[in-house]
Amino acid sequence: MIERLPQETALQPVHQLCRELRAGNITALQLTELYLERIARLDGKLHAFVTVFTDAALAAAAHADKRRQAGDSLGPLHGIPVACKDIIEYQDRQTTWGCKALEGRISEETATVIARLESAGAIVLGKTHTVEFALGGWGTNEHCGTPWNPWDLLVHRTPGGSSSGSGVASTAGLAAVTLGTDTGGSVRLPASFCGLAGLKPTFGRVSNAGVMPLSTTLDTVGPLARCIEDAALVYNCLQGPDPLHPQTQLQPPEDPLPTLRDGVAGLRLAALPASERETVSAPVLAAYDESLQVLQSLGAEIVQLDLPRSFAEYREASGTIISAEGYSNTWELIDREELPLDRHVRERMLPGKAISAKDYLLALRTLGQWRAEFEMTLRGYDALLTPTSTTTAIPVAEVDETVVPAYFTRATNVLGWCALALPNGYDDAGLPTSLCIQGHPFDEARVLRIGWALEQATAGERRAPEGII
Amino acid sequence: MIERLPQETALQPVHQLCRELRAGNITALQLTELYLERIARLDGKLHAFVTVFTDAALAAAAHADKRRQAGDSLGPLHGIPVACKDIIEYQDRQTTWGCKALEGRISEETATVIARLESAGAIVLGKTHTVEFALGGWGTNEHCGTPWNPWDLLVHRTPGGSSSGSGVASTAGLAAVTLGTDTGGSVRLPASFCGLAGLKPTFGRVSNAGVMPLSTTLDTVGPLARCIEDAALVYNCLQGPDPLHPQTQLQPPEDPLPTLRDGVAGLRLAALPASERETVSAPVLAAYDESLQVLQSLGAEIVQLDLPRSFAEYREASGTIISAEGYSNTWELIDREELPLDRHVRERMLPGKAISAKDYLLALRTLGQWRAEFEMTLRGYDALLTPTSTTTAIPVAEVDETVVPAYFTRATNVLGWCALALPNGYDDAGLPTSLCIQGHPFDEARVLRIGWALEQATAGERRAPEGII
Repeated sequence: MIERLPQETALQPVHQLCRELRAGNITALQLTELYLERIARLDGKLHAFVTVFTDAALAAAAHADKRRQAGDSLGPLHGIPVACKDIIEYQDRQTTWGCKALEGRISEETATVIARLESAGAIVLGKTHTVEFALGGWGTNEHCGTPWNPWDLLVHRTPGGSSSGSGVASTAGLAAVTLGTDTGGSVRLPASFCGLAGLKPTFGRVSNAGVMPLSTTLDTVGPLARCIEDAALVYNCLQGPDPLHPQTQLQPPEDPLPTLRDGVAGLRLAALPASERETVSAPVLAAYDESLQVLQSLGAEIVQLDLPRSFAEYREASGTIISAEGYSNTWELIDREELPLDRHVRERMLPGKAISAKDYLLALRTLGQWRAEFEMTLRGYDALLTPTSTTTAIPVAEVDETVVPAYFTRATNVLGWCALALPNGYDDAGLPTSLCIQGHPFDEARVLRIGWALEQATAGERRAPEGII
Repeated sequence: MIERLPQETALQPVHQLCRELRAGNITALQLTELYLERIARLDGKLHAFVTVFTDAALAAAAHADKRRQAGDSLGPLHGIPVACKDIIEYQDRQTTWGCKALEGRISEETATVIARLESAGAIVLGKTHTVEFALGGWGTNEHCGTPWNPWDLLVHRTPGGSSSGSGVASTAGLAAVTLGTDTGGSVRLPASFCGLAGLKPTFGRVSNAGVMPLSTTLDTVGPLARCIEDAALVYNCLQGPDPLHPQTQLQPPEDPLPTLRDGVAGLRLAALPASERETVSAPVLAAYDESLQVLQSLGAEIVQLDLPRSFAEYREASGTIISAEGYSNTWELIDREELPLDRHVRERMLPGKAISAKDYLLALRTLGQWRAEFEMTLRGYDALLTPTSTTTAIPVAEVDETVVPAYFTRATNVLGWCALALPNGYDDAGLPTSLCIQGHPFDEARVLRIGWALEQATAGERRAPEGII
């Protein structure tokens, strides 16, 4: 008989679970059963999972334990149960893209990112809910249902999107860590609303092969983790060249773990221009300012900088590219009015139909110019600090679907940068605020290092959502 | 006093000129003066050059000789006078894109390919005429004038395009070798009509940085040379990673020279499907069949193969991409009806205005599928042999501008292959026919090796255009 693990184990960091597994204090099977039991018990309310692979996960866990007993190490995630956003292909399993009309669609391939998690020893528990076609920042889904933000069990609040289910599953301990995708904030907004560490890698750092495309220019895959070290650990397993996504072959991988604890002394960090502060809600701004102070007290230099363009401009540019590319990827569904598509997503996608090849290509060219101009301005700075979202999670009933909450996040994708969202405080209702550490292209190790320093310095203030044990 | 070189020297192969220069039998200054004198004497009729850099070329030649006397080697092209198509930027010189309306436009940068030629020791004599915006296969240019094909000094025949001036200059010995660009055949068609070796490298092999774009998906730069070894020599100086054109960083360079003389024994070569033979004129087909026989006699296995699609289909697909991307690069000129643009070029470009982002993106996706499908079919074959153009050069007066002569060449760019065009015979009027050796992506060394074997085996039959000494 297998001894059942305490519920608290489900919320432990991955790096700690790895140690326990290695030490033989727990087994992969125990851990997998714990998460499966929690999914069975809590997901009726939280609605994070589209599909759960109970039998396959238990079999994989038993196999992982057997290999461990034989003295083999499967990799850095040996025995760690994970979950993936339901736009990531997993052979012979259902992948729906958050689209009711695609229910029952079976994947013919496995995405590189899932293959890499598995070859690092991870166990895939299931697939998580997403905004339809990954196009939306609040996390809502008209026909498949909106996951419940675990930070408020009474009022149904936005989980953040589009990787809504991955945000909720990671926060509520329904998996040890999850994968999301980020085209304009879709990893970082759930991280923000759910109080997680969400890493959006540089485009070209992590393979998109086997990830259903929204924007082939801006899509990226990244982890949603309960601490920075876990985000770094998982990211390190994901990164690196993949012939199926040639842009990943342009930059050699860089392990973020050896420099994670190097601190921020001597770093120069750019702060939000004064003109952009007024878009931010009071509690988010207060937390933001406090984070700057903490980083300063740790030895970083903070400089308020004028940026070449407003975040509103970057958001607009991103909209043209996302809707043109998105429509080209979904038109066969979007154009069939009889299909039960999310009406807000359809409305966001449809402008793509009217965009000409010329305007699309000019937008791409503008992007190139803006990247050069931004890089020039930020030369000499180690990162740019912004809030992740302008507010904390709001009631789903109050969502204005015509407003995009991705005000600060879209610029990152447009500019080809990487970024880490991490919790940096709480509003009066106890909902997490979030800081976005935006880094130069391929500078993931540095943003993780800055995030880790801030996380450690503020560890005493960290809370967990109540009532989800 | 500098002794004048005999006119025949101007038509010697580059590799032989290099030997003469190294041996001290001739100087770079003598050679440069020879080409400048020929340009002055012959280009009134041939109309290959837009701009001639007389003073700068003489200065560069004197410098090259001084360095040689000091015992320095500038590189494999030390002292070789070259000319470049007038869509390739050369700092502080005029670059017109073949467009009358851009007369007087001065380049602000130097293209990587020119920088590489110069750092290999080459001397840039001038810029050569091109079809406007490089969009046309016959080589005509309404407002800047159509270069004269040197193979017929009585009737004005098509030089082939779009690198028309580079084809004429190389053929007529107005430069030792020239550069062209190829988006659908623009290096190979002048090579075909002018009887040259024209290499279209794989996209990503040679940097496009500083080359005015027609199609950023299909554009390539390649040499127009009087023999295969020269094409290999110049290509070898051009190839290799350039951070300004990231796709060039995906494949390590491969020197074609060590394997150039390895012959074709044991190679499997795919021949034109029967269904495609009827598009080809009788003399071109006869020369094609004879080349197959020669290659067979040299030990190659020739297999007639069914291709997944017709060349007509590849040509159409290429049209969508070229006109969408081309229009996005030229609309500021195309849309101004008062500008003196070539009316045929304008007509070819204008369909790009009506292409939607969706249709453009779908065309790119189709391209990806076709590449995989083609690669699958051609697996196990070392190259595909086709004619280059369906006819030999025709009188300029008989050109039908609505017909594209790039029937066999466009597929190469669409499929991401490389190709070498080389003369393989003559029609009854003594005009050169041309074979196109189409190679797998990044397999330039092999197509050059096949071309060299054929060239050597048929060297006795080779002619030069009459009357241009």
